[in-house]
Order: sequence, then C-alpha cells, then structure tokens
Amino acid sequence: MKLTVVSPLIGEDFAENVRKEVAAWAGPGVEIDVVRITRGTASIESEYDEALAGPGILEQVKLAAENGADGVFITCFGDPAVHAAREIVDIPVVGGFEPAMLTALSLGEHVGIVTVLQNVVPMIRSLTRRYGLTDRCRSVRVVDIPVLSLEEPDELLTRLHREARAAVDAGEADVIVLGCTGMIGVAAELQRRLEADDVYVPVVDPTGAALLWLQSQVRLGVRPSRATYMPPPAKERNI
Amino acid sequence: MKLTVVSPLIGEDFAENVRKEVAAWAGPGVEIDVVRITRGTASIESEYDEALAGPGILEQVKLAAENGADGVFITCFGDPAVHAAREIVDIPVVGGFEPAMLTALSLGEHVGIVTVLQNVVPMIRSLTRRYGLTDRCRSVRVVDIPVLSLEEPDELLTRLHREARAAVDAGEADVIVLGCTGMIGVAAELQRRLEADDVYVPVVDPTGAALLWLQSQVRLGVRPSRATYMPPPAKERNI
Amino acid sequence: MKLTVVSPLIGEDFAENVRKEVAAWAGPGVEIDVVRITRGTASIESEYDEALAGPGILEQVKLAAENGADGVFITCFGDPAVHAAREIVDIPVVGGFEPAMLTALSLGEHVGIVTVLQNVVPMIRSLTRRYGLTDRCRSVRVVDIPVLSLEEPDELLTRLHREARAAVDAGEADVIVLGCTGMIGVAAELQRRLEADDVYVPVVDPTGAALLWLQSQVRLGVRPSRATYMPPPAKERNI
Amino acid sequence: MKLTVVSPLIGEDFAENVRKEVAAWAGPGVEIDVVRITRGTASIESEYDEALAGPGILEQVKLAAENGADGVFITCFGDPAVHAAREIVDIPVVGGFEPAMLTALSLGEHVGIVTVLQNVVPMIRSLTRRYGLTDRCRSVRVVDIPVLSLEEPDELLTRLHREARAAVDAGEADVIVLGCTGMIGVAAELQRRLEADDVYVPVVDPTGAALLWLQSQVRLGVRPSRATYMPPPAKERNI
Amino acid sequence: MKLTVVSPLIGEDFAENVRKEVAAWAGPGVEIDVVRITRGTASIESEYDEALAGPGILEQVKLAAENGADGVFITCFGDPAVHAAREIVDIPVVGGFEPAMLTALSLGEHVGIVTVLQNVVPMIRSLTRRYGLTDRCRSVRVVDIPVLSLEEPDELLTRLHREARAAVDAGEADVIVLGCTGMIGVAAELQRRLEADDVYVPVVDPTGAALLWLQSQVRLGVRPSRATYMPPPAKERNI
Amino acid sequence: MKLTVVSPLIGEDFAENVRKEVAAWAGPGVEIDVVRITRGTASIESEYDEALAGPGILEQVKLAAENGADGVFITCFGDPAVHAAREIVDIPVVGGFEPAMLTALSLGEHVGIVTVLQNVVPMIRSLTRRYGLTDRCRSVRVVDIPVLSLEEPDELLTRLHREARAAVDAGEADVIVLGCTGMIGVAAELQRRLEADDVYVPVVDPTGAALLWLQSQVRLGVRPSRATYMPPPAKERNI
Repeated sequence: MKLTVVSPLIGEDFAENVRKEVAAWAGPGVEIDVVRITRGTASIESEYDEALAGPGILEQVKLAAENGADGVFITCFGDPAVHAAREIVDIPVVGGFEPAMLTALSLGEHVGIVTVLQNVVPMIRSLTRRYGLTDRCRSVRVVDIPVLSLEEPDELLTRLHREARAAVDAGEADVIVLGCTGMIGVAAELQRRLEADDVYVPVVDPTGAALLWLQSQVRLGVRPSRATYMPPPAKERNI
Repeated sequence: MKLTVVSPLIGEDFAENVRKEVAAWAGPGVEIDVVRITRGTASIESEYDEALAGPGILEQVKLAAENGADGVFITCFGDPAVHAAREIVDIPVVGGFEPAMLTALSLGEHVGIVTVLQNVVPMIRSLTRRYGLTDRCRSVRVVDIPVLSLEEPDELLTRLHREARAAVDAGEADVIVLGCTGMIGVAAELQRRLEADDVYVPVVDPTGAALLWLQSQVRLGVRPSRATYMPPPAKERNI
Repeated sequence: MKLTVVSPLIGEDFAENVRKEVAAWAGPGVEIDVVRITRGTASIESEYDEALAGPGILEQVKLAAENGADGVFITCFGDPAVHAAREIVDIPVVGGFEPAMLTALSLGEHVGIVTVLQNVVPMIRSLTRRYGLTDRCRSVRVVDIPVLSLEEPDELLTRLHREARAAVDAGEADVIVLGCTGMIGVAAELQRRLEADDVYVPVVDPTGAALLWLQSQVRLGVRPSRATYMPPPAKERNI
Repeated sequence: MKLTVVSPLIGEDFAENVRKEVAAWAGPGVEIDVVRITRGTASIESEYDEALAGPGILEQVKLAAENGADGVFITCFGDPAVHAAREIVDIPVVGGFEPAMLTALSLGEHVGIVTVLQNVVPMIRSLTRRYGLTDRCRSVRVVDIPVLSLEEPDELLTRLHREARAAVDAGEADVIVLGCTGMIGVAAELQRRLEADDVYVPVVDPTGAALLWLQSQVRLGVRPSRATYMPPPAKERNI
Repeated sequence: MKLTVVSPLIGEDFAENVRKEVAAWAGPGVEIDVVRITRGTASIESEYDEALAGPGILEQVKLAAENGADGVFITCFGDPAVHAAREIVDIPVVGGFEPAMLTALSLGEHVGIVTVLQNVVPMIRSLTRRYGLTDRCRSVRVVDIPVLSLEEPDELLTRLHREARAAVDAGEADVIVLGCTGMIGVAAELQRRLEADDVYVPVVDPTGAALLWLQSQVRLGVRPSRATYMPPPAKERNI
Repeated sequence: MKLTVVSPLIGEDFAENVRKEVAAWAGPGVEIDVVRITRGTASIESEYDEALAGPGILEQVKLAAENGADGVFITCFGDPAVHAAREIVDIPVVGGFEPAMLTALSLGEHVGIVTVLQNVVPMIRSLTRRYGLTDRCRSVRVVDIPVLSLEEPDELLTRLHREARAAVDAGEADVIVLGCTGMIGVAAELQRRLEADDVYVPVVDPTGAALLWLQSQVRLGVRPSRATYMPPPAKERNI
C-alpha cells in the first residue's frame, strides 16, 4: 500500500518534519511519501490561506493518484480542498480534521479541540457544523502559537497541557484532539501529563489518526462515494 | 455607494450578462460594476471548480476594496471564497447563498432550493449545515442544466416550474430560492407561474437578494465582525 | 414606496420617538408613517403584554394595508402578531426580531442579543427556537432597564457596552443585536465603543434592519408565502 | 381539587360539548368547570384567530385563579396565550399541545399529529420547534374538516383513520396525537381501528391528556417556574 | 388500578424505603406494590451496574404483568431495561428519567438535573440525547453522595440546595429534576428552600412523577406503541 | 497485538462463522480470537435480547482483558453493553455500530443502514440519536430476514441490493452500512452490484470496520476516556 501526504505549505521545513513523523504510522508493507505544494502560503492560519492553497493541493492530489497512491492525506486540520479532491480521484482522501474527530467520538462523550490561534477557531467551528458534529464537540481552545513556531515542544506542551486541562476540568471535553497537524510528536506526552494530573484522558494526534484512517479504508476496500462526490463536468479550466 | 460584483468565471459572457442584470438592483445613487477573474474555470459546478476559483476571486475582492468599493458580491450560489474575503477587506462581502437563504427565511416556513446539477447538491447541503439552517431548509432539487446552458429561458423556466411545483406540492417548500446566480431574469416569471397554478409562493432571486443585502448593510453601517473574521497573519504567500 | 410602522404601545411618546427615527432609514422615494395601537399596554415586557397587544396590532396592520402601505413593521423585538398579520394582508410584514437576527447571521458566527429585562429573555429564546436559529444564537443578556426608561442614552449605553463587551469577551457573540426596538439611536455609538476597546464588532439596530428589510422585499417583489400563511377561514369574530 | 377549562371560542356550543366530555377525566374529588371567552372568534384555525382570542383567554384565566381554581386548561391545540397565562397566575396552566405531545413521547419513537386544516399546520410546526421536539415529531397531517364541523363523528373517524394509517404506514409515526381539542370522544375508537388493521398504535386525546396532566401537577405540588415565567411589570394596560 | 414498582437493586432496604414512599402517590383506588430483583447489584451508579441489573428487572416486569399489574415503574433514573420491558408486556412501563423530564418540560424553559455521582452523568446525557431533549436540558450536576448514603436527608438537602441554586443562578435551569430515585422525600423541602432564597422554582420528584404518569396513562387507555416496541421474535433464551 | 471478539449469542455456529471471517481483518502481527457468551439468547433482535445478553458479554470482556487482549469487539450492531464494558477494562472496546457509522461518515454525505428486521430499527435510531449523528443518518431499511437465517447469501444479497438501491435512488443514502454483524462476507459483492447499476457507492462491513478500528486505536495509543467512562464504585454484585 502506498500513501501520499500532501503538505499544503510552500516551505520545505514542514514537509521535512512530516517526513520524519510519518514512518511511525506506516504499518508493515505501507509506504508513505510526502510532497508539498509550490503555489500557496507559508502556513495556513485563516480561510484566506486555505483558499490560496487550494489549487496547489489539488494539483498534488491528482499527481499522487497518477503516481499510484492508494490514499492521500492533506496534512492540515482545516481539511483544505479535501472535498474537492474527492471529486477528482478514485482513492480515499482525508485531511486532518475528519479522521481525528471521528476517532475521538468513539473515545468519550465530548471532544475538545486545542488549536494554534484564535484566527482559525471559526473555521474549525464551521467544519464541526458542516460535518454535523456539534452535539458532541463544542470546545475549541488555542495555545496562541503560530504554526511556524510550533517546533519548540516545551512551550507548546506547557500551553497544550494548560488548555486541555482547563477544557477537561470545565466539563467541556472528555477527549482532546490536537487541532493542528503541525503539533507533531506531542500527543503521547500530553496524554501522559493529563493522566498524571488526575484521570486518563485520550489525546488524538491528527497525523496518526489520518494515516491509520487511510490504511483502514484501503484495507476495507472503500473510497469516497460517487453519489456525494461526483466527477466535475468537463470544461475550460485556466489556473 | 459603489458595489462591485465579482464573477468567479473566466469567461466574459457571464460577466456581460450580469452587467446587464445588475442595473435593475441599484437604488438611487448606487453604482454597481462587474469584474471577472482571469484564473479559474469556465463555470462552477463542483467543489473542485470552486477551489480553483478561490485565488482569482480573492485577488478581485482585494482590488475592488482598493478601488473604493463599499461592498462586494461574489456572484456564485456556492459562496466561494466568501469567508476568506471577509478576512482581508473592511467592507461587506456576500455570495449568492447567504442573502437569498436568509431573505427566504422571513417569507415562509420551509425553503426549497432549485439548482442546476446534482453535482452541486452536496455542496449546497454542506453550506446549509455550515450556516446552521437545516431545520428550515431540507429540499434541494435540480433542473439538470449546466451553468453555461442556462441562457435558454424557456426550457429553464419549464424545468424550474416543474421542480418548484413538486417541492411545494410535496410539502417540502413554502418559498423557492433559485440555486444558481446564473439563473438570471427568471424569478418573477417563475413566481407568476406558481401563483397561477395555485397559491402565491415567493421566489427569491439570489442576485437581487445579494445586491439589496449589500445596500442594506452599507446603509446600516455594518460589516463582517473582526471577532469571526480576523485578519490573516503576515507571512510569505506565493500564488 | 410607502411603509407603515405600527407601534404596539398605547402611549404616544414612543410613537413620536419612532417617528423621529424612521426618516433616517427611508431611501429615496420611500415614505414611512408611524401609527400606534389604542387598545393594549404601555410597553411590552412579557408574553402577557404581547398577547394583550395582539388585536390592536392586527387592526392597525389591516388599516395600513387598506391605506396602501407596501410593507409594515411592527416595532417590537418580540415579533408580536407578526405571523398572524401575514395571514391577513398581501404585503410584507416584519417585527423587530427576524430582520435583525437574519441580518446579523451574515456578519459573524455567533449572535448575541442584549435586551431590556430578564422578563423577556424566555420569549426571545422561544423565538430563536421557533425560527430554528439556536445553533448560531445562544447568548441573551439584559441591561435591566424597563422599556419606558430607555430614553436616558448615557446609562443605556454604559450598560449595553458592559453587557455586549462581556458577551464578546466570553466568546458568546461575534455580532451584537439590540434586543428591544426601544433602544433607539444607540447602535452606532455602541459599535464605536466596542471597536475602541478591541476589535470591530458590528451592532445591529432592529429598527434600521427592519425598515431596510421591508424596502428590500418590496424591491425584490416578494411577500410572505401563502403556503405558510394561509388566509384565515371566514367566521364570526367578535373583538 | 378544582380545575377550570377555558374554551377560547365565543360560541356556547363548543363549551357545552367540552362540559359533557370533561367529567370522564375527573378523578375522585376533582371538580372541573368550563367557562368560555366572550371576546374572540367562533373557532381557532389560524394565527390570526389565536391572536384575537388572547385577551379574552387571559381574562378568564385570571378569573379562574381568583375563583380558586387549582389548574387551568385552555382547550385549544395551538396553546393560545398559555405562556402569557403562566406569567399572571400561581397555578398550573396548560393548553392542548404540550401535555398531549409530552405524553406521546413516552409511548413510541415518532409522534404523528392529525389536525383539522392545512391552515394550522405551520402553527403546529412552530410550536414543535419552540418546544424543542422536532427530533421526535415531524409528521403533521390534516383531515380537512373545519373545527365547527367536527361533530359528525363518522366522517371525522373515517378521515382520522385514513390519515393516521398513512402516517404509521409511511414510518412517520408510532403514536398518534389528535391535533385539535375539538376532536372529542374519538380517540379510543381510532385506536381500536388502527389496532384492528395491524398492530397496536396508541392515540392520545389532548383533552384527556391535559386534564390528567393538571391533576398530576397539582398532586406533585408543582407549578410553572418563576425563573421562566416572571410576573409582568406593573404598567398601564388598556384593553 | 394496580401498579408495580420494581426496585432494580438486590438489597431489601431500598425496596422498603420505596414501599413507605409510594403510598403518597397512590390516588383513590390505586394499589401499588413494590418488588425487587434478586440478581443484580446493590445500587446502580454506572452503565455496568445497569447492564447487570437488566435480566433481573425484566424477570420482575414479566412477573408483574402476569400478576395483573396495570403499569410498572422501574425505580431508577437511568431507565434501565425500560425499552426492553416495553417489548415484552402489554402495559405501560416507565423508569425514573422519562416521566420526570417530560413533566419538567411543561414547567419552565430549561431543565437542570441534580444527581448522585459524576459516574452517572454521561449515562444521563446519553438518555437526554436518546430522547431528543438536548435543546431544553443541558445542565447535569452532582451532590457527590453514593446512592446507598442518600438516607441522611440533612446533608443531601444541603448539597441539593447548593447545586440547584448554582444551576438556577447560572441561568442553566428554570426547573430542577432530582436525578436519582433514591432521593426520596426531599423534593418539597428543596423547592421550599429555593423559593425562600429568591423566586419559585419547581422541583420534580422522579418517583412521584413516574407513579402519577402511570396512573394517567392507565386512565387515558394508552400503552407503548407496538410500532416502536415490537414483541421479540421467539428463540432460545438461556439466562 | 491481540484482539478478542465477543459473540453475544449463546450458539456456537455464529462464533464459528465469525472465527472464519476475522482472519481477513487481522494485519501482520495481529492475533484475533473469538469467544462467546454462555448466558444470553440465540440471537439479538430486540432490546429485550440485548438486555439479556448484557451480563454474559461483560463477563467475557473482563476475561478477555485479564487474558491480555489489547482490544475487544462485541460483534453486534446494537453496541450491547459497549459503554458498560468501557467502564470496567483499560483497553478499547467497540461494538458493530460505532466504527461502521463513523467510518461511513468520511465516505459520503448521508449514511443509510440496511439491517435485518423492523424490530431493531427503533434501537438503531436510538443509537443514532445517542451518538448525535442524526443530521447525517436518517435512513434505516430492512431485508426482513432473521439473524439466524442470514447464511443464505444469495437471498440476502438480493434483498440488500434492493434496499440499498432504493435508499440511494431516493436520495437517502450516499454510503451504505450493513446493519447487522451477522451479514458476513457480502459487503464487497453488494458494493460491486451497486456500482454495476450506476455509480460507485461504498458499502461498509461492520466487522471489518470494527476490527480495523481497534487496530488503529491500539496503534494510536488511545483507549476510552476515564472522564466519560469512570470505573464503577465498589459494591455488592450478585449476578
């Protein structure tokens, strides 16, 4: 099985970090490569950035399918261009939001998200409503660290712990989802700190959740429905 | 007051049709100009087309604001790039969906949409959930005519009438919204035909609804909230 | 175009205040007159007051339509007798709640209402549920000033500012709606104060929103659906 | 225990029919008297009729409380003036909708209402949303008989049976609620006919449900909350 | 009329307490007996306990029906085995949750539950979602006293008062429901204390609500629908 | 990794069928054993059967955890005792409903379930509401074949195809979930038939979905939250 991760950022650094991370989530016989877009933005922290990244993402998804990928993960929690991508390829495509959230729903009653900046909170709430999950997820908190500064794990963990703790203590969350795919390699430690405080609360890493999700879908033999994701009609496209 | 309509299609024909239409919706002292994007697709009939049109739309919205527009209407029922655009300019921005649907909610209990192709129905349902309006709008029907073939009003009206009639008779709709901003100049005649059949059912034209919505917002002195639509952080953007 | 405002209070003072205010919302060629009921209550601050005002309001709405009005605004945030009125006349009829709330929905994610007294909060929540808008509006706060004491704008503004600020800061609201049509002439100043504190948050004045709503509906050529608002069957009525 | 039924119709005939009926629902030691309004309409078949009946109903509710009633039933399925009445008296007050619907919720998954005329369907749907019950009640059908012609039980039963049967067979309803308090004395027979067809489906009579509801509330020692139903502030009222 | 209360606990003490209590809720001519299960747990404070009690409860319900009961109350707020029981007998069956909650809905806008331990809160929230009542009930608080220690009424009342007060003051609740059927004989005093603080807030006792609910259903002549609660197909059952 | 499948039926035949099936879903290094309950029923086709199976299931789940299982699948679409089981063991536990439904949500807009008998439809709808998924899943259809007769794959496939086709054609479903874990080995063929008719519609097999779900959760390092699933307090349990 061959999976492709599309980094929707123009910089090579994030793609490189993702490349180091994904090996941990590849089962036996699973090969995961990481590509990045060339037209777009340095990070995605607004609906504006997300819209600018769209064409570049779709180009990479199409390429991945042509190159024989069995599934594609667009590594951003805002699920940018995910639904558009499902229209144009015949393989499973996921972003960071959907697999993490659906995974979390089976782990506890209320899901709390901790993301980067206040700027993306309305986008996340919009996704929650779009996917019909508002009854089970109402809490979205922020660490107030930009995407490109997430690499200092100490400060990130301190703030994740503070916000996750607050969400659990306020009764808003029974499960924590990391609300940015740039929060790499911190889920297990956050989970450990939360349990050390009090009781066990699972923390869902969106990268792991997405890559395992794709592997499961490939093994189940399913891909997005053509009743929802119809192929776009032929026409002039100048992009 | 100066409003700009952004046509999210690369062809000049649609922009020209819109140009003829908008005069009807300009109140005294209101000037409306129509611009179009240059990178994008010939029509928007999928999430894919919508994503490809995003950067071109945002470019035109920014230009419009720089040129002194008091409000912008992105003339597509899928509200493409509308939320992104609200992040980057300090004036009201609407697409075709939101003003038509909110207008319709004050005219009857259940709103029924009649749009072009089955391909866009999931996109419209997603918007309905995103905006939290599912309790009042569950019916989306199609005339099965592509956007670029909408200009034959006779066939379009015949099919609109058939689908709208069916929605009303099935108890799905008390108000009809035309689900494509390319359905120009047919709302009044459709309303007349529905009333001639039976009882009065209002038909909301999304172009008229959007242009009057902007005029009202400008006169009310309001624009999108910066608590929802925060300005995107500065960063490298290569598009 | 000729619009009629029906004041659902028996006192002349409020009608007089409304009369001064409405000119600001009349576009070119729009004439707005203000009438008041003679049977009813001095102010509406309960479901009881609202029920007592019903017959008087309906009498005035019928008169307005007979006198050639193109639209009627029943100037109370509780939308008293609005749905009943739509059954008996062939022109658009709105109250204070619906146009303000629907306008607000296009300006930000969550709408917060600031109204007069705790007494009317359940009535407002009931309207929110009735109209299917609870996903987007959960916050209702009060200034704790009776309707007939709203004329001291300084104290009113101080309290509106305090409550609106609290709603925004608590993440309950991205847009503020003034929850009483007696809060005349304060929206712009409240909006200015909120922006001076922090970021821009729009404030929707229900009187302006309603009068512009009616003008838009008249220009769009629509009125309430007879599929929802059927004419009452003929019968003996003794009132 | 003394209960008062308020007939919100100006005619004596309906009050007289109710008077005959209520004895069946009085437990030992329960006295039930029936009064009627004098200002209002011959029947309630629209929001308009309901609004006109409001002041007359509230007058009778107040009188009933002054005369020592322990609970009041306003015998109309539209719950006219019920919430207003709860503000002004210190005893339980119900209409026809709420007790019947809440009773039905404990008898099966989906509740189907069969009412008189299409005119009142939007009013009933509005109540369903107002009370937050839409997940469990989506089906409202009509027998198409005006309130004042309900007294021919044969035709009424034939049509009730046809509509209830259709609702059950279509999977819309597991429990039937009679959607008009004028449908007196037919619930048991309708229930018998439905069971004779196929399987047992309960039919809830709104008059019986309301009168038993009041008796239960009195015996439980509860009445409407003053946190929801605050007493109306003192003011001039001229009605 | 003969009602049976099934205590889903294996101990005799609770059954004995219930036995003393139920007389207060029997109307004239109503006989209420109390039985208990023999296989199960000492108290129900988890989904685990509830599942273990299931077969024992169903055995007692079947016996009660065979012994001529006209209705059965399974005295636990978690409604254990209630839906299963409705499948196997032809008489009304209720638990503690449903009658109390539905009763409360007619007494105020928002219902707040005060229960025993945090352990059962997710179970109660699950019931609220299962029954479709989340729009009107979001507040569940705990006194943090195990079921078998509820018999010290002073401490229980102090804590109930503290939590109910907090729920009302926070605007979460207008009506209080006691969230454990082991909280016997305290509702009236709690209601008195709440009213002494401020304004009248009704407190619903689940035992009283359930027993009166059954009496009303028997008198209405209704029982659970066979369209929802179909009889289990014949098969081998080894329990 | 070691997973245990608990068959909640007392017969050995079903356990044997499951045993043959599960190998297909075990990834490299994954061992899956199948156990069955000894107290319970021959099949689960009602809430009654489900309640009777509860104690036996919980016994087996506890044993599985003691024997070192890393995850448990209770192979029934009704999720019997799943939430109770999560309280008593420190490993992931799933039933048939939750993993299949959550998997399906990422494959298309509306999920349609095709299950065995009408008897279990209300149970499935209750689960849908309990899990907060009603916005995306409204269609539940039946093949009308009892669980123990599912082994004739020809007739089963014919009926599954007919019902799935009808759900898709009626616009109720974009993805099909097999609503009984006894429908073994037919998902791929059903998916093939649906695609041969028209367009690709994914079919989710609940056994595969559950076993892959567990493997993903184990690899993600998460298990059910102790904030939702608290350990049951110590007490006497006699079962």
